[in-house]
Amino acid sequence: MKTVSFASPWLIFLGQATDDLHAKTGHGLVDWRRENCLAQLRFPGCAADLGIPDMTPAEAAAAGAKSLVIGVAPVGGALRPEWTATLIDAMRAGLDLVSGMHSPLGNVPELAKVAQETGRNLVDIRKPPPGIPAANGEKRSGKRVLMVGTDCALGKKYTALALHREMQKRGMKATFRATGQTGIMISGGGMPMDAVVSDFLSGAAELLSPNNDADHWDVIEGQGSLFHPAYAAVTLGLVHGSQPDVMVLCHQVGRTTIIDYPDYPIPGLNECIRRYEEAAALTNRTSRVIGLSINTSELDEAGRKKVLAEVTRETGLPAVDPIATGVGTLIEAL
Amino acid sequence: MKTVSFASPWLIFLGQATDDLHAKTGHGLVDWRRENCLAQLRFPGCAADLGIPDMTPAEAAAAGAKSLVIGVAPVGGALRPEWTATLIDAMRAGLDLVSGMHSPLGNVPELAKVAQETGRNLVDIRKPPPGIPAANGEKRSGKRVLMVGTDCALGKKYTALALHREMQKRGMKATFRATGQTGIMISGGGMPMDAVVSDFLSGAAELLSPNNDADHWDVIEGQGSLFHPAYAAVTLGLVHGSQPDVMVLCHQVGRTTIIDYPDYPIPGLNECIRRYEEAAALTNRTSRVIGLSINTSELDEAGRKKVLAEVTRETGLPAVDPIATGVGTLIEAL
Repeated sequence: MKTVSFASPWLIFLGQATDDLHAKTGHGLVDWRRENCLAQLRFPGCAADLGIPDMTPAEAAAAGAKSLVIGVAPVGGALRPEWTATLIDAMRAGLDLVSGMHSPLGNVPELAKVAQETGRNLVDIRKPPPGIPAANGEKRSGKRVLMVGTDCALGKKYTALALHREMQKRGMKATFRATGQTGIMISGGGMPMDAVVSDFLSGAAELLSPNNDADHWDVIEGQGSLFHPAYAAVTLGLVHGSQPDVMVLCHQVGRTTIIDYPDYPIPGLNECIRRYEEAAALTNRTSRVIGLSINTSELDEAGRKKVLAEVTRETGLPAVDPIATGVGTLIEAL
Repeated sequence: MKTVSFASPWLIFLGQATDDLHAKTGHGLVDWRRENCLAQLRFPGCAADLGIPDMTPAEAAAAGAKSLVIGVAPVGGALRPEWTATLIDAMRAGLDLVSGMHSPLGNVPELAKVAQETGRNLVDIRKPPPGIPAANGEKRSGKRVLMVGTDCALGKKYTALALHREMQKRGMKATFRATGQTGIMISGGGMPMDAVVSDFLSGAAELLSPNNDADHWDVIEGQGSLFHPAYAAVTLGLVHGSQPDVMVLCHQVGRTTIIDYPDYPIPGLNECIRRYEEAAALTNRTSRVIGLSINTSELDEAGRKKVLAEVTRETGLPAVDPIATGVGTLIEAL
């Protein structure tokens, strides 16, 4: 599969992160891939802490690290000039560099030069692999569950990761398939769907979940929403190329309009389910939404129970909050 | 509007085209933009003929030409080395170069060098302009008619151009908005939707048809089909960003499956209409399909009349063949 990939274990670079929110990529890595997180590298004054050992590039390399992963997201999403010396040290110590920034690592001439000298890889997570073909639309073996959303930024990645972890715990064959930069970093590979040239979107989704064993599940992180005026095309390309057998609809309680687009109402849950099933039918006629993942982070326990029961009454489908209740009910509904 | 654009009139370059089919871009330019076609440039042995004067770059520049447009599509879609000397002559004579090839003009070092020396533009039609934003979803002034299709390659561009020409003939305010490389060449500007990074697809379509007079029509060339397993996402992004007031559904008689995808049936016409109206409703709630453009090129006149009458009976909407019957009926249905 021609998708982005990079080597573990990792030295996680936080630079001068001013708080833990700006280090959320680093925290995501520790939350979901603790076993790959060897150490963190913090500049003096860094206010974030991942709770793992502090190491220099040389110490991390000696302890087995293979990549330095930038785990901090500065405002503007650009590489900071004061990072360059440390990133060069890392390459000289034997580490590849991994970045989800918008600006490619190779655009910094010093980094490009040292990468060439040392033979280290500069891995830009947001850059799709070359040679993605147009989709062929052919049915693939194995099973696929895709996260879909009423909107962006409400828990699709978290739900997919929780489903994958629970499947592994139960001894099921499963692979998490990342479709966005943070998911790709967490899993060490995937496809940055939002950066793919539009003609090849569905083809990119096909590459991401190739043929597999009949009892293997690809757990595919979603992107955007069919009801989003800017990003619905990305969502549709992912739905078509993924050919999902089943989908989990993700929603945040109390959100009634698309985030940052107050003139765009989120349809009712049953209408969302109907529209996703209609869209998915093109490449998989029997595709169904089999449950809902509801972000109830703003509610207390009584409120959460009430909401989940209401959602189930409205849709006739199981509803979970992956953080509060776990995703066991969804797995049983597969 | 930050879209592709280039100056007219044109010297149309045919090189050593072996027949008129390989010169179909040149023929499209002469068919639809005769007034911009000053001359053609043919190598000895060229078997194509656009029926316009033959000129050298120097003669064309002296007669007022502003751009040399590559009007030939060699197999593989790449620039040919034997063209380079002539393309350099054109730049030295004062002409910009315009290409719809996959490989950018600037990838040929000699062309890049002379363009820099002479200050001439190298215009790659397939390259989206920089800085396309995400869609904002805001309603724009003016009216928009978008071509949509049951499939690819069945007459969407031709229908849009015919509608635009008929509107102009009737004294209506109208602009043709190209979404693919040939359409962009014919109209001298537009947006190569299939080459836009997916996050910015709808934003690109918004740029293409900006605010305009209340009685002005943007006639927007379509792309792909909602029922195409590889390209539906391109179609959806174009539908959402275009916010069409009305749509014309284009179809080819006798085509029952998606071209090159025999496992993908084309739905019935009424189902296609319903799905396009459902998709368009996200950004324009009252968007409607108001007629059909049927490619009946494989039928005789009696067969054509019968088919158009059947389509109208089935859908309750006017149906035309833009080549055989003209598009007047569609304009009256706007």
